[in-house]
Amino acid sequence: MEDKHMLMIPGPTPVPEQVLLAMAKHPIGHRSAQFSEIMAEVTAQLKWLFQTQNDVYCLAASGTGAMEAGLINFINAGDKVLVGDNGKFGERWAIVCETYGMDVERVKAPWGEALDPEVFRTKLEADTAKEIKAVVVTHSETSTGVLNDLETISRYVKAHGALMIVDAVTSLGACNVPTDAWGLDVVASGSQKGFMIPPGLGFVSVSDKAWAAYENAKIPRFYFDLKAAKKNLAKNTTPFTPPVNLIFALQAALGMMQREGLENIFSRHQRLTDATRAAVKALGLKTFAPDGNASTAVTAVDPAPIGAEDIRKAMRTNFDIALAGGQDDYKGKIFRIGHLGFVHDRDVITAIAALEATLQGLGHGDFESGAGVKAAAAVFQNA
Amino acid sequence: MEDKHMLMIPGPTPVPEQVLLAMAKHPIGHRSAQFSEIMAEVTAQLKWLFQTQNDVYCLAASGTGAMEAGLINFINAGDKVLVGDNGKFGERWAIVCETYGMDVERVKAPWGEALDPEVFRTKLEADTAKEIKAVVVTHSETSTGVLNDLETISRYVKAHGALMIVDAVTSLGACNVPTDAWGLDVVASGSQKGFMIPPGLGFVSVSDKAWAAYENAKIPRFYFDLKAAKKNLAKNTTPFTPPVNLIFALQAALGMMQREGLENIFSRHQRLTDATRAAVKALGLKTFAPDGNASTAVTAVDPAPIGAEDIRKAMRTNFDIALAGGQDDYKGKIFRIGHLGFVHDRDVITAIAALEATLQGLGHGDFESGAGVKAAAAVFQNA
Repeated sequence: MEDKHMLMIPGPTPVPEQVLLAMAKHPIGHRSAQFSEIMAEVTAQLKWLFQTQNDVYCLAASGTGAMEAGLINFINAGDKVLVGDNGKFGERWAIVCETYGMDVERVKAPWGEALDPEVFRTKLEADTAKEIKAVVVTHSETSTGVLNDLETISRYVKAHGALMIVDAVTSLGACNVPTDAWGLDVVASGSQKGFMIPPGLGFVSVSDKAWAAYENAKIPRFYFDLKAAKKNLAKNTTPFTPPVNLIFALQAALGMMQREGLENIFSRHQRLTDATRAAVKALGLKTFAPDGNASTAVTAVDPAPIGAEDIRKAMRTNFDIALAGGQDDYKGKIFRIGHLGFVHDRDVITAIAALEATLQGLGHGDFESGAGVKAAAAVFQNA
Repeated sequence: MEDKHMLMIPGPTPVPEQVLLAMAKHPIGHRSAQFSEIMAEVTAQLKWLFQTQNDVYCLAASGTGAMEAGLINFINAGDKVLVGDNGKFGERWAIVCETYGMDVERVKAPWGEALDPEVFRTKLEADTAKEIKAVVVTHSETSTGVLNDLETISRYVKAHGALMIVDAVTSLGACNVPTDAWGLDVVASGSQKGFMIPPGLGFVSVSDKAWAAYENAKIPRFYFDLKAAKKNLAKNTTPFTPPVNLIFALQAALGMMQREGLENIFSRHQRLTDATRAAVKALGLKTFAPDGNASTAVTAVDPAPIGAEDIRKAMRTNFDIALAGGQDDYKGKIFRIGHLGFVHDRDVITAIAALEATLQGLGHGDFESGAGVKAAAAVFQNA
């Protein structure tokens, strides 16, 4: 039937009704005093979410655009950069850096495993000539459900002195990203994830240290020139027409998040993650990311020998639940359950119950009936 | 009172209720078959509006982002480009080209006057070595309300062989922009103008000739690399997460436009323009752009000796009508009435009646009472 669709993918994520209605308001002029008041408010809200005193800029762009801006404003062609690459997005940032002529060294781990912080430490400590200008890490690798140990890596980066540039696209709003406490120089994110709003807005925070690097940055850019964003934000405005209605949505969503509180948001995501992983295992399926490095945004599942696409298709057809598939080499091999943003216990119970029924329908009900829901419920009860 | 705001600025423009409601629908996954169907439909609709067989790409960006993409994918650093500069946006494209190291020659006209096509002809004919690689023209110069003679300029450009790159941000959907008939190689626009949807989407069409230039284009770009957009559009998708809800809005708005029909849309905008200009003159104010080159998107008004900002402030305070101010040197000297997109005769009559009352309130009622409305009504009756 129509309009029964349920999103359990790592973006776009479900959007609360009050956010949809805020977005449906008639736009106002972006050069008006009224809009500047809104920009001032969302900027304060974003600083709260990013846990930073740095500016946070809103760009009319996807998370990829925000991340590109976070790279090309602070690194030069020829500069050496270490890029963590253990999934689709880590790989993408390496390609972006190479596109702009940076000297990229990939720090790799297989898909489904976490980056080893000690590899970063070794390379950074060996770099006594300080040739490494930046380290780029994807915090929550959306393609695999792996949460990289950003806290440890950023400590090593800080000791070295390079810029720490972070893809926090699916981690911000889903787990703790204390920008200032961890010394994260550039943090990029996107609206359709933990922010609970539709896609179309990118965010990027910039530290004083990154601004110092900006002064020597020579890669040409105009739309993504963050100095223009900085100058305009000082007047609570933007250099180019912002997506006014998405800013309305952002204001509403960040208001909801502030009322829930950071600690509650993080513990909710942890609880949903633990419940999802426990349930998946109880159904005899393998979680793709290790327990110690599980993203609180998305859980990737390896259902072999059952076909991942068979499960996705049946979940979609029978229950109108959207799950994400695997990417690149893992297409057809894994599926991914998004549980970030406007998601709570009932949604996970729903998805797990549907997954149980789906597995049974596919002739793979070799688990105690109700095992998945029971495992999830046990996590909720003990949380 | 709340929610009585009326937008008469050249963007964001008013958004129809059915478009706001389409935008407020819950997002769906952008990698779904359902979304690909929508992308296929809006692409066909966009080709209809652009009057082209070329692809039209949707970017999560403002019109400036779309225009930057339209420049950096087809021109190299060092390439000679002629850039028409008779207002804020023409000037901006010259700066973008210079930012990327292009060899820019500005073809200037004073603000409020049209570019002289014969200057382009002379320069192009003198360029027997074919050093000029592209000509960049802003069709409707939003800052001044001037409509440049794109048809004539593009004919000279075609005879020369350079690429014709067009800022159609406020002209598309407000007046005739026959991309293929005029041989426009790259046409960029933005959503919050004639498209009747909120800001956040940019559009760019690309001709085969421009794609040939792409093969030699060396300026680094990733997010704005249009080949990625081309490859993905062939599968009815986008390289990066698109603003799904703005695409819903676009589908609804373009459907409305198709039901109205191109000729009706253009004649409506012409009628609104003629009425606005007649009314402004009947009130004793000067139109800033000449009659022969009046944008059908926006009318700039020079109210001297009355203060433009006094008028804007009173219109806002007393009637909650937003007019745009002047930009740069013309800040405080002109005001601008937007009449593009979801605007019809009643809106113009409303704005003119309010302007009459405002002028009287400011002590400048030295016109026959009702003269503005009468002049507008005469245009409507004769249209």
